[in-house]
Order: sequence, then C-alpha cells, then structure tokens
Amino acid sequence: MSVFEVLTNDNGSSARRGRLQTAHGTIETPVFMPVGTRGSVKGLTPLQLKDTGSSIVLANTYHMMIRPGAEIVDALGDLHGLMGWDGPILTDSGGYQVFSLSTLNRVGDDGVEFASHIDGRKIYMDAEIATTVQNQLGADIIMCFDECTPFPAKREQIQVAVDRTIRWAEICKKTHSRDDQLLFGIVQGGVDPEMRSLCAEELIKLDFPGYAIGGLSVGEGHENMIRTTQHTAALLPSDKPRYLMGVGMPVDIVAAVHAGVDMFDCVLPTRNGRNAFAFTKNGPIRMRNSMHAQDTGPIDPDCPCYCCRNFGRGTLRHFFNVGEMLGPILVTIHNIVFYQRLMAEIRERIEAGTFSYWALESIELTNALESESISEYKIA
Amino acid sequence: MSVFEVLTNDNGSSARRGRLQTAHGTIETPVFMPVGTRGSVKGLTPLQLKDTGSSIVLANTYHMMIRPGAEIVDALGDLHGLMGWDGPILTDSGGYQVFSLSTLNRVGDDGVEFASHIDGRKIYMDAEIATTVQNQLGADIIMCFDECTPFPAKREQIQVAVDRTIRWAEICKKTHSRDDQLLFGIVQGGVDPEMRSLCAEELIKLDFPGYAIGGLSVGEGHENMIRTTQHTAALLPSDKPRYLMGVGMPVDIVAAVHAGVDMFDCVLPTRNGRNAFAFTKNGPIRMRNSMHAQDTGPIDPDCPCYCCRNFGRGTLRHFFNVGEMLGPILVTIHNIVFYQRLMAEIRERIEAGTFSYWALESIELTNALESESISEYKIA
Ligand SMILES: [Zn+2]
Ligand SMILES: [Zn+2]
Repeated sequence: MSVFEVLTNDNGSSARRGRLQTAHGTIETPVFMPVGTRGSVKGLTPLQLKDTGSSIVLANTYHMMIRPGAEIVDALGDLHGLMGWDGPILTDSGGYQVFSLSTLNRVGDDGVEFASHIDGRKIYMDAEIATTVQNQLGADIIMCFDECTPFPAKREQIQVAVDRTIRWAEICKKTHSRDDQLLFGIVQGGVDPEMRSLCAEELIKLDFPGYAIGGLSVGEGHENMIRTTQHTAALLPSDKPRYLMGVGMPVDIVAAVHAGVDMFDCVLPTRNGRNAFAFTKNGPIRMRNSMHAQDTGPIDPDCPCYCCRNFGRGTLRHFFNVGEMLGPILVTIHNIVFYQRLMAEIRERIEAGTFSYWALESIELTNALESESISEYKIA
Repeated sequence: MSVFEVLTNDNGSSARRGRLQTAHGTIETPVFMPVGTRGSVKGLTPLQLKDTGSSIVLANTYHMMIRPGAEIVDALGDLHGLMGWDGPILTDSGGYQVFSLSTLNRVGDDGVEFASHIDGRKIYMDAEIATTVQNQLGADIIMCFDECTPFPAKREQIQVAVDRTIRWAEICKKTHSRDDQLLFGIVQGGVDPEMRSLCAEELIKLDFPGYAIGGLSVGEGHENMIRTTQHTAALLPSDKPRYLMGVGMPVDIVAAVHAGVDMFDCVLPTRNGRNAFAFTKNGPIRMRNSMHAQDTGPIDPDCPCYCCRNFGRGTLRHFFNVGEMLGPILVTIHNIVFYQRLMAEIRERIEAGTFSYWALESIELTNALESESISEYKIA
C-alpha cells in the first residue's frame, strides 16, 4: 500500500488534496512545516506548536550533526525524544546548509569537505554520511544529499550539480537502512527546464516514495520560481507527494499548490515573528511601529491564535521595545497560525472545488498590493 | 469584612494558612509570586504561568513607569490588559529600583531625583507620584514608596530612611485613590530591631490592609535576615497579611513562613532558570554541565511540570548549548513549579499540623548540604 493517497484532484488546476502516512502520524496535504533548525521552533514548546495546527516539523541535519551530534541525538531517543515532539518530523539532507553556511574546502564528485560554522572544525560529508546521519536522527521523512546551485549559474555548473545529485541519490537509496523513514529524492537543475527534466527523469527511475523540488528560493525571483515549479511538478509521479523546499511567501505557496505541490517549509513565519513582523491578509504589520503604542486591538481580530485572543498590539510593541522574549514568541505563534490557516483554507477549497478561482484571485490581489509593502517580509 | 482571613494557625510556630481577597481573585497563603518585571515573566505566556500553579504575579513600577509609561499601561487596560493576566497582580513602589538601578541625583525628605537607566533622562519620584503611578498601573496590591538602606548602614542613616518611610507612607495613604487596590505599608529599619519596632509601630497606626518587610536580601546574610524577619513579623497585626520582599532561597522561605510571613517574591527561580540552574530538593543542577549530554532523564522524576514530563536533561543541555530560547523557558517553568510545589507543601503541612517539625528539619537538612553547592544558586 502506498504511503500517499490523493483524496481529491482539483478541476481547474494541478492542486491535490492528499494524505501522507508516516511512522509518527498522518499528514493532511497540502501542508506547511515550521522549521525547528536545532531541535526547537524558536521559543515555542511542542504544546504551543501543536496548538498552531502544525502536524509536522522540520529539523536541520547540518545543525544537529554539528551540535549535539547524531550519536547524542540517537542516545536521547532520536529527534522525537530530543524535541519532545511525538508527531512527524522531516530532516533536510544538510546539503543546502553545507553549501550556504559553512566555509567550503573542497567540493568533489564524491562529497564535500567544509569547516563547521561554529568552531571551524573540518568535516567531510557525502551521500552515505548524510543518509547514515539522518537514519540516526530518526525523522519520519529524510532527504537525499544534493548539490544546490546558486542563482545565476552557468549551464555547465548546473549540469555538474545535477549529475552529482543523481549519483548521490543512488548512494542515499542504497545506504538508507530504516523502513520506518521515507527517503525523498530532490530534483535540482536551477531554472533550466531541460536540466530539471533530466534530473527528474533519472530520480523517478529510483522510485522514491516522494520527491522534492530543491534549489529554488535562492534569488531567482517569484516568476522563475513558479515557472520552474510548474515545469518540475508536472514531471513528477502524480501518486507521490511533492515537496517544494524553502518556499515561501503565502502567495508563493498558493501558486505552488496550484502547480501541484503538496509540502512546504519556510523560515519566514518564525524569523519574521522574531523580528516583529506579523503576517496579515492585508500585508505585514511592523509591531515595533509607534503607531501601535496605545492600540488594544489584536494583530488580526479574525485570528483565533493565542496571541490575538490575549494580547493587543500595544503590548506586543512594548515587549519588542523592551526586549521581552514574549514578543517574539507571541508573534511567531500568530505567524505560524497564519500559515496553517492558509493551508487549511487551501485544503478546504480543493475539497470544495473552489480552489483554482480563489488561488488566481489571491495571487492577483497580492500582486496588486504595494510591492514595497510585501517585500518588507523578506527584508526581515 | 477583612480582605485577609487566617484559616489555620500552626501550633509549633508562627506560621499561618490564610486567604487574601483581591479584585482579581483569591490568593491562598503562604504564597510565592513570580516576578514579571516589565509585564512578562520572561519567556512564559500567562497560560504557561498559570500552569505552574502561580496565582499572583509581581510587576515593577519603576520599569513600567519608564517603559512604556503609566499612561500607556493605563490605555492598554492597565497591567491586567497589558500582561494578558486576569489574576491578581502586585506592583512594588519603585523605591528599591530607584535606589539600586538608577543614578541618583538627589535624595531628599520630599523624594528622589534620578537618571533613567535606559536613556539617562531625569525623573523625579516621590510618595505621591509612586502612588498615582501605581493607581494607573492598576495592580490589585500596591506598595508604599519607601527608602531602602544598604547593608551595612549606620544607625543615623537607617533612622533617616525610617523617618522618610513613615512620612511617605502617610502621603501614599492620602494619595491612594482606588478602592479596588490594597495599599500595603513597608517596614524598613535595616537589621536594627529598635528601628524596625519604631517603623512598624508608626505604620500600624496608619492601618494598612497589609504590611511588607522591606530592605532585606541586600547582603545581610541568612542569619540577619531571618532574625530581622522574626522580630518584625511578630510586631505586625496578626489579622493582616505579611509580605517579605525579595526573599528568597527555598530555605529562607520555609524559615520566614515559620516566623509568620504569608507572601514572597523573588527573581531566583526565573533568573536561575535563564542561567541554566535548576532547583531540586537535592540542590542545584547546572544544566550546561557535559555530564547531562546523553541523559534522557528529567531534571526531577518526581516533578509534574511540563519540562520534566516532556524533556530530558540531555535536551535541556543541548538547548542551552546552542542558545535556543526553549532552554531558559523550560527550566524557568520547572523552577517556578519547584517553588509553587514548596508553597503547596507548606500550606498543606500548616493545615495538617505537621509544618513546624518539617520546617526545622528542612532547614537543618539544607544547612547540612554543602554550602558551596547551595550558594551556586545565588551566583547565577
Ligand atoms: Zn493571531
Ligand atoms: Zn520539573
């Protein structure tokens, strides 16, 4: 029996309403996964995280491997034990962080040697190690080790990264030793449709239980991102979940669901929450703005989150102003709830057959909002 | 009808089991009040705070007056609205912080001129202003503006401070304009029994609904502190609640309850929580210690707190090690629960008639523990 089931295909788009079975529970898709880089969604207890409507959380292999180390995570009852989270968890492969956070000493066809961003210690990472580490970390969904190209990149460079990504995917599959973890392949290829097609084709032969679209949200812009997502999603098996890594703004998510994507992760709701930017349907609210000083109203009167039910904008501004942890915590809660409510609406609309019209309208409406206002989210 | 009721007087000591009515709820005494200096017990939502068993929380007049300012707190629905806390709140008078945190420009018989610790701005504070500000902040229990002497201090200096404290208490009482707030008098007098007696006698004439013992925990040591508390508590009306300000270690609290004290506040459980020191019956545990790295056991297997039910020591160490907010949050929760369980045991033992023997035994046992180990709490 397949772990993924498509419950409803949308009429007017490639969107699907699905259900993914993991060792620690069922995920209703399309789904948004908050990011708990070092084993914690910053400032939130697992109880608070569950209350946001989150069903699955992401942790970063690179960070957990460096501190406290995969052996210690294993000894602490794997990521579930460490995080105090008994629901599904996904770990990335560490590839993205190796290429973006660390000082690279050598990148070869076999793997990557880099210096830890914490203490400069030399570390070697390859497909086999990334898989073994993720087997130890024990997440329900784990990812193949891949090479992510920057934007822009020359075709030759993309070709090399795609070749390695395919070869490494084979090694990951061979190395993967746990039946209770789903290993997803990652399609690379920059914004080059031919490279994406080549990569997808080869990975599909390896028959992974799910596929990710990687290497986007690296500066290529909304248009390139959506075009590449549409192209790539259409290549992937319709009976497997599709995960768009690191994306993104609410409008990006709506557009990607429209293109057939089922899973998302992004640091925006949490990072922006810590930086006092609150998501609302009418654009971002900067909680530090002095205009909120005496405002007893919530961020969003229609939001059912703990923050909006209990705290006014004036209090939130005060907490950020004096540096109280509760400011970041509360706005993070609100922002994750904002994302989870968006996903709930997407799922309901696909079920009800009202998704595609609403999606196009939402995308247009967002584009019509002042671009400067929208880009504020990304500055944070 | 009196707002305070003594339910049980202990046989072997001056301890009492009481009940204090406030505008926002009833407080079972002896009670411990966590400190929410700037309107938040650092890192905890009001829901998490309530779950620790806390019934009343303290906020600091000095900090709230400087940022965001009493008018803004008032506009935000007073401290209850701002904090999202519908239970009882107590504010100190600001006197202690004025004398300890700010740069004093002038101290006179009328009041104090000081420079804000935030921006250096000159602020004048006196008994009338402290009371008006606390009327605006809207706590259920507010305190008279007092002068706290350092330790050691000469008798002349103590005498001047006691005289001012008495004069200022009269002004506070006259200024106080809200029936729904209880204004407590504060007995000063250093560790000088005669000065304490003089101060208590004069304040009792003013017939406050409750009395605090101030000016302790300023470096006088456990012996002086307990001796002064015993002396002063015995002078205070037995039908009014007695509040020992800023105290203290668990053993100090047990000894002070034995001396007849009903209310306590202290930053130790919260501050030590943020600094990775966990309270246990067997002394402090330093969560950063590498010995905990692979320990899946909780801080205390007998503790019913959210932290102990969901997180092992290894995870807590990891969170502190990498600087995740969840470390401070979880150990703060544990430490407040530790204090609230201590208070619950004290209340139960007074009711059951088993307090005094247990208290003396506890105090002896604590003294028998390595003094260096105990003093670690205070270093943090
Ligand atoms: Zn909200
Ligand atoms: Zn505990």
